Amino acid sequence: MTLRIGVVGAGQMGRYHIERLAGSVPDARVAAVSDVFVDGARQVAEPVGARAYADGHELIADDQVDAVLIASPGDTHEEFTLACLAADKPVLCEKPLAPTIDACLRVLEAEAAKPRRLIQVGFMRRYDAGFRTLKERLDGGQVGQALLLHCRHRNALAPPGFTSDMMITDSVVHDIDVTRWLLGQEILAATVYKARRSSLAPEGLADPQMVLLETSEGVLVDVESFVNCQFGYDIRYELVGETGTLSLGETAGVLVRQEGRYAGPIPADYRERFSDAYQAELSEWVQGVLRGEVTGPSAWDGYATTAVAEAAVQSQTKGDRVAVELVDRPALYG
Amino acid sequence: MTLRIGVVGAGQMGRYHIERLAGSVPDARVAAVSDVFVDGARQVAEPVGARAYADGHELIADDQVDAVLIASPGDTHEEFTLACLAADKPVLCEKPLAPTIDACLRVLEAEAAKPRRLIQVGFMRRYDAGFRTLKERLDGGQVGQALLLHCRHRNALAPPGFTSDMMITDSVVHDIDVTRWLLGQEILAATVYKARRSSLAPEGLADPQMVLLETSEGVLVDVESFVNCQFGYDIRYELVGETGTLSLGETAGVLVRQEGRYAGPIPADYRERFSDAYQAELSEWVQGVLRGEVTGPSAWDGYATTAVAEAAVQSQTKGDRVAVELVDRPALYG
Amino acid sequence: MTLRIGVVGAGQMGRYHIERLAGSVPDARVAAVSDVFVDGARQVAEPVGARAYADGHELIADDQVDAVLIASPGDTHEEFTLACLAADKPVLCEKPLAPTIDACLRVLEAEAAKPRRLIQVGFMRRYDAGFRTLKERLDGGQVGQALLLHCRHRNALAPPGFTSDMMITDSVVHDIDVTRWLLGQEILAATVYKARRSSLAPEGLADPQMVLLETSEGVLVDVESFVNCQFGYDIRYELVGETGTLSLGETAGVLVRQEGRYAGPIPADYRERFSDAYQAELSEWVQGVLRGEVTGPSAWDGYATTAVAEAAVQSQTKGDRVAVELVDRPALYG
Amino acid sequence: MTLRIGVVGAGQMGRYHIERLAGSVPDARVAAVSDVFVDGARQVAEPVGARAYADGHELIADDQVDAVLIASPGDTHEEFTLACLAADKPVLCEKPLAPTIDACLRVLEAEAAKPRRLIQVGFMRRYDAGFRTLKERLDGGQVGQALLLHCRHRNALAPPGFTSDMMITDSVVHDIDVTRWLLGQEILAATVYKARRSSLAPEGLADPQMVLLETSEGVLVDVESFVNCQFGYDIRYELVGETGTLSLGETAGVLVRQEGRYAGPIPADYRERFSDAYQAELSEWVQGVLRGEVTGPSAWDGYATTAVAEAAVQSQTKGDRVAVELVDRPALYG
Repeated sequence: MTLRIGVVGAGQMGRYHIERLAGSVPDARVAAVSDVFVDGARQVAEPVGARAYADGHELIADDQVDAVLIASPGDTHEEFTLACLAADKPVLCEKPLAPTIDACLRVLEAEAAKPRRLIQVGFMRRYDAGFRTLKERLDGGQVGQALLLHCRHRNALAPPGFTSDMMITDSVVHDIDVTRWLLGQEILAATVYKARRSSLAPEGLADPQMVLLETSEGVLVDVESFVNCQFGYDIRYELVGETGTLSLGETAGVLVRQEGRYAGPIPADYRERFSDAYQAELSEWVQGVLRGEVTGPSAWDGYATTAVAEAAVQSQTKGDRVAVELVDRPALYG
Repeated sequence: MTLRIGVVGAGQMGRYHIERLAGSVPDARVAAVSDVFVDGARQVAEPVGARAYADGHELIADDQVDAVLIASPGDTHEEFTLACLAADKPVLCEKPLAPTIDACLRVLEAEAAKPRRLIQVGFMRRYDAGFRTLKERLDGGQVGQALLLHCRHRNALAPPGFTSDMMITDSVVHDIDVTRWLLGQEILAATVYKARRSSLAPEGLADPQMVLLETSEGVLVDVESFVNCQFGYDIRYELVGETGTLSLGETAGVLVRQEGRYAGPIPADYRERFSDAYQAELSEWVQGVLRGEVTGPSAWDGYATTAVAEAAVQSQTKGDRVAVELVDRPALYG
Repeated sequence: MTLRIGVVGAGQMGRYHIERLAGSVPDARVAAVSDVFVDGARQVAEPVGARAYADGHELIADDQVDAVLIASPGDTHEEFTLACLAADKPVLCEKPLAPTIDACLRVLEAEAAKPRRLIQVGFMRRYDAGFRTLKERLDGGQVGQALLLHCRHRNALAPPGFTSDMMITDSVVHDIDVTRWLLGQEILAATVYKARRSSLAPEGLADPQMVLLETSEGVLVDVESFVNCQFGYDIRYELVGETGTLSLGETAGVLVRQEGRYAGPIPADYRERFSDAYQAELSEWVQGVLRGEVTGPSAWDGYATTAVAEAAVQSQTKGDRVAVELVDRPALYG
Repeated sequence: MTLRIGVVGAGQMGRYHIERLAGSVPDARVAAVSDVFVDGARQVAEPVGARAYADGHELIADDQVDAVLIASPGDTHEEFTLACLAADKPVLCEKPLAPTIDACLRVLEAEAAKPRRLIQVGFMRRYDAGFRTLKERLDGGQVGQALLLHCRHRNALAPPGFTSDMMITDSVVHDIDVTRWLLGQEILAATVYKARRSSLAPEGLADPQMVLLETSEGVLVDVESFVNCQFGYDIRYELVGETGTLSLGETAGVLVRQEGRYAGPIPADYRERFSDAYQAELSEWVQGVLRGEVTGPSAWDGYATTAVAEAAVQSQTKGDRVAVELVDRPALYG
């Protein structure tokens, strides 16, 4: 059995997924690609034998499309996920679910009225072997209750036009999701501290920052967000429990002893670091959908994450602690 | 396009491959399984919709089988690879190609008479990301010429019935292959040293041993083979070049700080350690065959490896250095 | 030439210093020991051929005493350092210089009126090889300007009677000193966050905590203080600069591969971790005094550190950011 | 009480010891220095207030000299240690005890006739914290019986004039001593393998080499000796026991994350690597002598080590295994 997938958005992220779906995800086939630049859609659709559309809604309506992957810009996510819900098609939506709390709520409500989940949000870290082991160990009680969580989220260079609030909404949003998932707790407040500004960051960007999150059980989470750290894509976590700590180790690789030092590699970017995680995310999503299930990060996760991110963005401006208010959790999300 | 694969041998290794071929290797389908215990073949064939045979030759002859994976006992490899050659079907043969030099030569000669390669031998380490990076760095000249190579090959516990010569033919054989491939040199001599015997090794097993290999360019290779090391599956390499050394790092994983120490994981067995390598081996083999190519470890590699292993086994008994004599390399192997 | 040292206080810390001064610090001799429990003073004085006093003032007045080391309880530091200043004797005073800002200021003013420094405060981390290398690299410009500093300060178990504010004044005070010294900047504000409380911490102790410090140049410093972490004495630092980060590595030691993991040691307590630092502190102090110089952490450092600690203790109660106000720096302190 | 030490030899090693004895070894004083270049002796003697001699025998006879440290060339060690024995003065003799087996035996016999040991040989590695922990763990039974020992002994660059046999007698000699001491076993045979020659080694130097040692209990020891490895002074050990392995970890230091890698330091030379070991060696020797004891590496150790080194040098030429023959161990050496 093969899942026929339509991909909305043929930009960098869309192409990355299409290549993987076509080449290494079992039981998956790219059936259609859409992009407002229809030539871009055609360019990637043709080599994999897929149809090209200019309009995502037409793609969603295509009855040769069993399931949809949304990789278009964030402000289009609401309309496309709602269309998928209307068409009763499973959808994997890249983060964010939607860029505002209100938009997220509209999607959430639409899905909550359904008998079963259709939406998965693309928080791929949950599929990384290291993060999964971290959660297994914590859940297994190896270090007692979680008390603190230290996160480092560093990119070598931010893309042009990256703004201080995108440091939260595009980058820290992953740490917000990991925190909620890893600890199994909601985040109740966010406070953002701006560190000394790097002279290598573009004018106007408050880089690096430190985001403090407080969870419902009192766990304190600090996230260093540094998007022009120059040296690599450096994701590090240490969870402090009552009897010990759990850390993501260095990524595996060849150690070189040369010129007075031993040295190991730091990944260059998220694709190198999370390649296996993306592979697992897509493979498990495809197999799940073929079985009739959607089990990954939910629309509720997408909503809650956006709510926390929005509080953090407010804190950036106000320079103070901002509380997070969540609606009641619909029954669909357990 | 889908490659219909017949698997000869439904033992531990066969089942391991069948599960992967059926579940996560793109464009592959298990079409048939054979085993002398035909019930075993049926047991694994049925869930994946494959036919079951008692006789590997019938499986090879099945015209619904495009390519063959041989995972039966080593002493059957010769007849089955010859049958595949006769049927002109691509074959991935688990190591060894054959258990004796003479048997290997018969297979080699049969294939050498063909216009193109059909046989690949299952040396999966060549598909491991760490080993590949090691080779890229060496070939890229990062540490100058290779001078020495230190290898550690440790298993927690040997299976019952494991003998001293199997430590060479079943275990060190992987290091022999890696050495030849990594350095791009043939091995000219082997000397085996028995270390102090572990009191935890079964009666009669000379465990651990140290195998010294000398290559055509004078590189000295030492392999520690310890098959009852108790603590895990521990594969470590350090290549010493003229300006630095390259080592396989620890496998990635979660670091735990607890009870007065920080600690990281050592894999339990070869499946955990080389899971990704097996995945890459099968995926690349399938894609290659679909393109009409066989590019992995060749019958020549299988033959040369067996020749070195046989010299090492002789050295075990004689307690002395044994030279390796190789036939001329047929033109097919470049 | 030998420096004759009088040690005030024969408790745990005093004894630790006496043993080292008598056994392994060149050119040093313990000439006298005082303690309100004069039997305790006698017990340690006798084996090293020193005189015993019940009253520290008598010890300071003893003309066989060239220099004084104060290791008595913190609330006696003011009177004894003032007595040393009055007697014109160099003094190494264990931290804190004095427990309140006002007391520190009285000592500071008394010394500031002198033509040269006599007081050194016992912040021994500045003598640790790792911390020194960290500072050399930073000052050498290896990673550009400092932007963030992450500190972990963990003790296996707090002593009985340890209170939440002692977590600042006894423990984090070292991180406050390191921050000021490493960055060469004063700290302008402190905010304390209480994390989820460990169920293994004694009743009433807010353990662990997170202390956020902001420096004059905007560097953000986070200190995890966890005094019942159970697993060891774990001091870790990462300084984030504009082009890279500098971390204290694991302490050297033997790595064990056993039972499915590789593991290295975490020190048990501050004595094990900072033994070499204490040795260097005392040796350099003795040699300096013999040359007529006092160059280590100054009374100004002692005062500024207490001012920051006091702000942090206020923040613990108020739950808010507290600014640090410092008097003008007297000319004596450059 | 102060030990008045005479140092024979004011070359590199002699000066290194004199500086330490004068500056940081408690209870030690350099009373005299001799060198055949008497100006060299004067140059170092004067700043530390010591007498200078051209003739080591005069220094040994000086009654202001309580104990002697020999750091002159190896071929003078026999006469000077014999002179110390005749004068009944404790002596710390840099390795080798003497450069030939016969010369060692003459010293051994002279000392064996005495009622107590006077000679200590300068194998400083036994005083290194890492090596000591290795021995404690092994002796404590943590990994069961020792089976194999892997040693790496790498120097960045050999001094001019360094020859292939000096790779054994000057360099591997330390590993020979460590092996005997760590395992508590004599070495019965040595085999030397020459690896591919580094093109960066001086003409005529067989660099690197691999030395295989076999102990009385069957432990197999491999020593990589590489004296022009270019990248640093890299001493690494892994002891393989029945239930686990023990390794010397990386030396502590600052980790740098920069330019796509994390990196830690490798020491530049033996002084940096073994500075603390030399300090402990001298301090413990001084304290022992003041107590009337000599407990470090003995003349027997010096003799046995030279005997193994000589066997290895023979094996270099013969290209074969050479057995080590030892005389009976005199009662003095327990």
